[in-house]
Amino acid sequence: MQLSIVEIAKPADTNVIVGQSHFIKTVEDVYEALVQSVPGIKFGLAFCEASGPCLIRHTGTDAALEQSAVEAASAIGAGHVFVVILGNAFPINVLNQIKSVSEVCTIFCATANPLRVIVAEDGGGRGVVGVIDGSSPRGVEGASDQADRHAMLRRFGYKK
Amino acid sequence: MQLSIVEIAKPADTNVIVGQSHFIKTVEDVYEALVQSVPGIKFGLAFCEASGPCLIRHTGTDAALEQSAVEAASAIGAGHVFVVILGNAFPINVLNQIKSVSEVCTIFCATANPLRVIVAEDGGGRGVVGVIDGSSPRGVEGASDQADRHAMLRRFGYKK
Amino acid sequence: MQLSIVEIAKPADTNVIVGQSHFIKTVEDVYEALVQSVPGIKFGLAFCEASGPCLIRHTGTDAALEQSAVEAASAIGAGHVFVVILGNAFPINVLNQIKSVSEVCTIFCATANPLRVIVAEDGGGRGVVGVIDGSSPRGVEGASDQADRHAMLRRFGYKK
Amino acid sequence: MQLSIVEIAKPADTNVIVGQSHFIKTVEDVYEALVQSVPGIKFGLAFCEASGPCLIRHTGTDAALEQSAVEAASAIGAGHVFVVILGNAFPINVLNQIKSVSEVCTIFCATANPLRVIVAEDGGGRGVVGVIDGSSPRGVEGASDQADRHAMLRRFGYKK
Amino acid sequence: MQLSIVEIAKPADTNVIVGQSHFIKTVEDVYEALVQSVPGIKFGLAFCEASGPCLIRHTGTDAALEQSAVEAASAIGAGHVFVVILGNAFPINVLNQIKSVSEVCTIFCATANPLRVIVAEDGGGRGVVGVIDGSSPRGVEGASDQADRHAMLRRFGYKK
Amino acid sequence: MQLSIVEIAKPADTNVIVGQSHFIKTVEDVYEALVQSVPGIKFGLAFCEASGPCLIRHTGTDAALEQSAVEAASAIGAGHVFVVILGNAFPINVLNQIKSVSEVCTIFCATANPLRVIVAEDGGGRGVVGVIDGSSPRGVEGASDQADRHAMLRRFGYKK
Repeated sequence: MQLSIVEIAKPADTNVIVGQSHFIKTVEDVYEALVQSVPGIKFGLAFCEASGPCLIRHTGTDAALEQSAVEAASAIGAGHVFVVILGNAFPINVLNQIKSVSEVCTIFCATANPLRVIVAEDGGGRGVVGVIDGSSPRGVEGASDQADRHAMLRRFGYKK
Repeated sequence: MQLSIVEIAKPADTNVIVGQSHFIKTVEDVYEALVQSVPGIKFGLAFCEASGPCLIRHTGTDAALEQSAVEAASAIGAGHVFVVILGNAFPINVLNQIKSVSEVCTIFCATANPLRVIVAEDGGGRGVVGVIDGSSPRGVEGASDQADRHAMLRRFGYKK
Repeated sequence: MQLSIVEIAKPADTNVIVGQSHFIKTVEDVYEALVQSVPGIKFGLAFCEASGPCLIRHTGTDAALEQSAVEAASAIGAGHVFVVILGNAFPINVLNQIKSVSEVCTIFCATANPLRVIVAEDGGGRGVVGVIDGSSPRGVEGASDQADRHAMLRRFGYKK
Repeated sequence: MQLSIVEIAKPADTNVIVGQSHFIKTVEDVYEALVQSVPGIKFGLAFCEASGPCLIRHTGTDAALEQSAVEAASAIGAGHVFVVILGNAFPINVLNQIKSVSEVCTIFCATANPLRVIVAEDGGGRGVVGVIDGSSPRGVEGASDQADRHAMLRRFGYKK
Repeated sequence: MQLSIVEIAKPADTNVIVGQSHFIKTVEDVYEALVQSVPGIKFGLAFCEASGPCLIRHTGTDAALEQSAVEAASAIGAGHVFVVILGNAFPINVLNQIKSVSEVCTIFCATANPLRVIVAEDGGGRGVVGVIDGSSPRGVEGASDQADRHAMLRRFGYKK
Repeated sequence: MQLSIVEIAKPADTNVIVGQSHFIKTVEDVYEALVQSVPGIKFGLAFCEASGPCLIRHTGTDAALEQSAVEAASAIGAGHVFVVILGNAFPINVLNQIKSVSEVCTIFCATANPLRVIVAEDGGGRGVVGVIDGSSPRGVEGASDQADRHAMLRRFGYKK
């Protein structure tokens, strides 16, 4: 078994969600979950079928994002893994809906950061063993950092 | 620390779900979640107790599936990991109910494919670091593959 | 890429929950989820911001537990990972509420056991690839162990 | 405004679920939720469209149950109300999945008992104001009744 | 059919939750949901069985609260209705867990206020048609009321 | 006790959601649930406080919609009832998130139709007993209506 790192390429200002599911129905179910979460949502979705024809299954509402999702899923190349690339929406808009899809096992990450996915490979297949999502911590927040954080969430309108 | 691959043996035509939970109550709670999901469900369940007597705890509605679950959990041998082997039901019938159990942290996979679980071991214990679920992708679906996928889900009755 | 094991230090008789989320709003949202779960709950929470200032963000209702959470998150040092240390409450009291927080991707573990977190590191960042939660199994429960398990859950009042 | 009581006719040994939702997409979404809950599930579903053509929309996996659902929905005749008649499954197998459908507002009842639905009517429309589900209590359980209840749930296999 | 108002008597400083469910298993399942929500929770629970012996089924962790719940359920007397009286916990600690119980259809109210339940009765049974929870509004909040509300939630520790 | 019908006035092309909750914290929690569901969402929210000052509490992201919500809540005037008026979003975008808020008991309706709320009043307070959401059915769909329904959901992009 070998471990390697897959750098995920995605368009600027997009978010990526990577998860583990099961069954090809994931494609339509995650599509429906996304479309009904945010009016006019732009996204691409790809899923690694893990038996039979073993195709990268894909759908979306934006051709470029769908192509990016296919490329990311191809680079990961791990059975039953799916990738969502979000254009005009954020993970917090859709993550609970994706987690509730009946085929979804887990979400490895949801991020706008540079993302490396750690993949294991043996003779017959590949699997995700973890993600490196953005950068490591460089310090601990102090009182003024906390005030900035508090203010930022209110400036964005998320909190009162 | 060493990484190794555990091949999961399971009876033909069964599905396996592997997850991380906490606390021995998992055994009764997942049992109840499964029994109330599908009338007459056949399954086996095993859980790796991670403190005190450190026993493989197990239950189920079918002796052979319960034995398979015990064997799979023993092979993985990682603290607080549980294994469900499903006979006459599918992961989509039960996965959201298992995800909702209060002790369940995450689901590593749910699959009918050949499954290898990647396990880390140090001096005192073991942990799951990933799964290789079935085979890697061999291509990207085209328009006719999409039509086949669309038709298959409707032939199975999952979609209209 | 290098793998290493991080031993999590936590006060006696506390539980630790480690998960992957996204976005700094995690800090307030998990705080609110915990505070409204159990009256008078004592906990500490820390989150590894993964872009910009990359600070360990933290909050809580108990200064010592908050400090423990900061130390555990610092030791892990992986982008978008969060750590909760629970004083007077148990994971089953809060885990479903944390899983429902919109930023939360997955929970790696929830445990009172000795915990080692396996971390991958490349040049720019770190990521969790798994946990070793307590000890490995030492046997399979028999009929009298099952009776003990059944009785214990009822003695604790969890089951009738 | 007038209140009246609608007696729900349903085949012997079936369960009925009555709820309030919104939007015609309810029909496909509840259908999908049911089909993926229980393999081989037999049910009928009807929904009172409340604008435009105002038709009783319907689907199902069993013609007789679908007809029963249409008749029950027609008898209730209230905007955005839906009725599910379950043949070979029980409400506990499907209720959480129905509650999770994005269009579903509330469930008025789920029962195998004789059911009367209380309906309000004004000039332009009708609405459900409550249900009379089976019979009123005739006493308070004592210790031996509790033992019987405890034993029955275990005889049915729902609890250990 | 007749409508009447049932005044719910409950001990001072308690909260009451009234809901509609189905099936006698509600009693154990809601009990388990409550016990695992808050350590040391004190509550009483009663459920109106609606077929067969038609008994008020009951359980709890505090005899006086259990007796209050039985009295409230008896006063309502409507098939498949349940009542929870909470002593040392609040509805926000437990409401999502109760809503997630597989037998629960809906929650009519959760309140510490004086509560009247509106009940319909025909020849054979009774049903809840609504609740009058506390008092009607006497005005619209202005800017200083909003500041007070904002401050109160932070003084209670629910928000930052 | 008297029953009356309250006609809900709302701006053209908006949707209204009416529900029962408990506790003044509902205002901030539903606000947060809505803001994080849809980027740039426009809505108004009002809640009938049912004890103490008994004010209509309100918030939102659009002054006109907030005013409409206050007027609708005032017209209903029932303790612990809340009203959401949605401008640029649909109930399916937000309903599951609102149902998951810890204070929310039930949702009476979610609709763009003309809406009448049936309210009961006794000496001290008021309560919702039901809704008349749009119009009553005028027929049962046939095969061509089903084809139209099927096509419409796909034209809207909700289904494949």
